[in-house]
Formats: sequence, C-alpha cells, structure tokens
Amino acid sequence: MMGRASKREEIAQAAFRQFHAQGFNATGISDIVKAAGVPKGSFYNHFSSKEESALEALNRYGASLRFEMLTASDSHPLDRLRAHFEFLSKDMVENGFVRGCLVGNFGAEVADHNEEIRAAVKRGFDRWTARIRQVLAEAQEAGDLDDDLDIEATALFILSAWEGALIAARADKSASAVDAFFRTVFGVLLRRK
Amino acid sequence: MMGRASKREEIAQAAFRQFHAQGFNATGISDIVKAAGVPKGSFYNHFSSKEESALEALNRYGASLRFEMLTASDSHPLDRLRAHFEFLSKDMVENGFVRGCLVGNFGAEVADHNEEIRAAVKRGFDRWTARIRQVLAEAQEAGDLDDDLDIEATALFILSAWEGALIAARADKSASAVDAFFRTVFGVLLRRK
Repeated sequence: MMGRASKREEIAQAAFRQFHAQGFNATGISDIVKAAGVPKGSFYNHFSSKEESALEALNRYGASLRFEMLTASDSHPLDRLRAHFEFLSKDMVENGFVRGCLVGNFGAEVADHNEEIRAAVKRGFDRWTARIRQVLAEAQEAGDLDDDLDIEATALFILSAWEGALIAARADKSASAVDAFFRTVFGVLLRRK
Repeated sequence: MMGRASKREEIAQAAFRQFHAQGFNATGISDIVKAAGVPKGSFYNHFSSKEESALEALNRYGASLRFEMLTASDSHPLDRLRAHFEFLSKDMVENGFVRGCLVGNFGAEVADHNEEIRAAVKRGFDRWTARIRQVLAEAQEAGDLDDDLDIEATALFILSAWEGALIAARADKSASAVDAFFRTVFGVLLRRK
C-alpha cells in the first residue's frame, strides 16, 4: 500500500505526463488518477484543483531541463548553450516529435485564460531567459560575441525561437525546424567573431 | 431570416473566433452555435464535425495574414518582410496580447492528436515559410544579404521565432518578445550588408 507521500508523488508524476502529452484542457482529473492508479478522491487529498497540479507539473518540467548544464564552467559558454538545446532536442527527436515544451504549450493554450498559470509560464520564461542571458554575457566577456550585441533581447529571442521550432517540428514530424534553429542561432546569430 | 449560405458564414466566423480565442479543446460546438446565434442542429447542416470547422478556421486565419504584402514589388524585400510582421504584431498589441497565431496554437495544442489538423498546420507553416523564403531570395539577389545565408533554413527559423515570440508575449502581456524579434531578425540576422 502506498503511503501518503508516495501517492502524492504518483499523482504529480501522472499529472505532469498527462499535461505534457495531452495539454491542459484535454486532461481531466479522472485521466490523472487513472494514470496514477489511485482512487479519484485521493487527488483532492494532495491538490486543491487541476490548476494546482498543472503548476506543480510546470515546476517538474523546469527541473527536468537540466539548467546546471548552462552554468557548469568547465566548457566554453557557447558550447554550453548548444549542449543545452541539444539535450532538449534529443528528447524531442527520440520521442517522434511530440509533446514539445510544457511551458510553451501552457503559454499557447492556457495563458490567456488562467492568471495563475500565465504568471507561472511567465516566471518560467523569465528564469530561462536570464540563464541564457548569463551564458551570452560570459561569451561576450570572453570576446566571442560582438560587444554591441543586445544580450537581453538576444536571450529572449533565442528562447522564443526554440519554442516556435518545437511547434513547427511537431507539425512537420521532422527535425527541420530544430536543425534550422541550430544552424541559424549558432551559425549566424552567435557566430564567433 | 438568414439564408443557408449566410448561416454557414455565421457559423464559420463564430468557429474561427472561438478557436482563436479559446483554443480547440476548450471550444465546443455548443459554444460555436451560441456565438453564431443559430440552433445547434444547424451546425451539422454545414460542417460534419468540429474538426472540419477548425480546418475552415485555419483557412480563414491564413487569408487574414495578408500575404500579398510580402509579394507587392513596389518596396524593398526586407522592408516588405518587416511590414508583414509589423502588421501581425499590431493586431496582437492592440488586443492586449491575447490569442496569438491560430496556426501555432493548433500546432501546440492539436497537432500531436489529430492528423488532419496536423497536416493543415504543416501546410500553413510550409506555405508561410515559402513566402518568407521568396522575399529573402529577392533580398539576396538585390545584394542586401550574404550570398552564403541559407535562406531556406533562415525562413523557417524566422517563422518559428515569430510563433515563439507570440507565446512569450502572451505570457508576459507585453511587447518585449515581439520587440526582441524585430531587433534580432532585422537588426542582426538580416542586417543589410
């Protein structure tokens, strides 16, 4: 028999997987408890609403992005940035171009309609952008990028381009848009001086 | 009393608006007929399914993008490309950073789950990319872009970046991501030689 803590973990994991695979509106609490293998009522012992479990899913997704790859200082900043997106694209390619990014998915589907989720998506984008910006700042300090490159705008732009590339890849069921992302970001936009 | 053709038009318009504002899964046929002010049964006189009305909505959205702005040859290719995205961003800003792009929204929410809609989203992206590519080819021929710029990858990348910028703008309820798009695409990526 599962303890209380492990039941919460089962539900949270199942919610994360359902939201990521199906989206917010297509996921019901009944889908989550069924996937978790727990009685329906037990959902409300751990989460007050579907929305709360969606916020937890966003946290879990954020933790899966391995941002520590961006800050490990043992390799070149732009190599770390490329490795970060290569890690993310590997998951996408191996899974047959489905699911995409949970932050972007909730941004597209839910942000207009739910203020709590919009704010969480915004925080997710802000933190992610700040991390990319930090890597660009290091690359600029190392003399690999033009001093006049606006790293704030560039970081936000790169993250936007990544989110859009995932959507295009899902529509095309191919890596074309992801390949175009790598070629353009690392071959043109951030080309070393 | 509305005639048959005008009823179809009312339903199609209402479906477009509902799908764009609410998304695919949050829109029911009952929402569409209510918004159109027609009896529920009349939906099926004109559309076989919600999916069919969503495909029609994608066509209507495509027609609203004013692609003719990209092909009018009376101005510089890169100015036309900028005017195209400025036209699209105006709508976004004026409406308080909601709704985004219907093609991208369906790509994020529906493409993994519905083959007909996925194929229509793919066609939409492909045609849009081809139009951007054509403008980049003209700019390259005019000597405004490097000859070695891969215009195929760049066109797909720009469209991806646009789609992602709309999602980030909706999450942030600000023009920051759209501003970063213009600054980076036209100030760095396509900076005239």
